[in-house]
Amino acid sequence: MPVLRNEIGEVLRDARLNQGRTLRDISSGARVSLGYLSEVERGQKEASSELLASICDALDVPMSTVLREVSDRFAAAEDLSDVAMMTSIPDTVPELLGSVRR
Amino acid sequence: MPVLRNEIGEVLRDARLNQGRTLRDISSGARVSLGYLSEVERGQKEASSELLASICDALDVPMSTVLREVSDRFAAAEDLSDVAMMTSIPDTVPELLGSVRR
Repeated sequence: MPVLRNEIGEVLRDARLNQGRTLRDISSGARVSLGYLSEVERGQKEASSELLASICDALDVPMSTVLREVSDRFAAAEDLSDVAMMTSIPDTVPELLGSVRR
Repeated sequence: MPVLRNEIGEVLRDARLNQGRTLRDISSGARVSLGYLSEVERGQKEASSELLASICDALDVPMSTVLREVSDRFAAAEDLSDVAMMTSIPDTVPELLGSVRR
C-alpha cells in the first residue's frame, strides 16, 4: 500500500514540474526552506496542515485537487491489492509444514 | 479555509460513530493510545502517514475514501470562498483614506 506522505510529495512535485517552476520559486512563495520543500516532495517529511496549505497556495492548486489526486492514487492501489487477493493461490504450505514440525 | 488535520479528524470520527464504535475499540485496533486517537479526531494532532493508515485499517475504511471525503469538504469550502470573493463589494475606502492621510 502507498504511504500518504510519498503520494502527497509526488503530487506536489508533479504540479510544480508541470508549471515549469523551481523548488526555489515555490519554497519562497510558501515561506518554507528549499530543503524542507524538497524533503516533503520526496516523502521524507510529513508536511503539517499549515505547510501543505502554503505549498498549495504557492502552486496555485486548490487543496481539494491535491487531495483528490492522492485519493485516486490510493484507490488505484487498493483496487490492485483487491485483485491480488482474489487471484492469489491460497498459500497453505507453511501451515502444513508448521503442523509437521510440531 | 478549513485546516487539513481538522477535516481528517472529523471524517475519522464520523466513520467511527457511524459504526457505533468506541475510541477504545479503534485505538486498540490501530495500536495507538486512546488519548492520541482522541486528539487526532479533534484536530489537535497531525497524524503521521503510518498512524492514519492504521486508523483507517482499524475502521475498515479505505484511505482513498477518507481522502476523497476530505477533498470534497475542501472543494465545498473553496467554492464558498470563490462565491464570497465574486459577490463582495470592492473595498476601496481604506485605500482612499490612506491617500488622504499621506
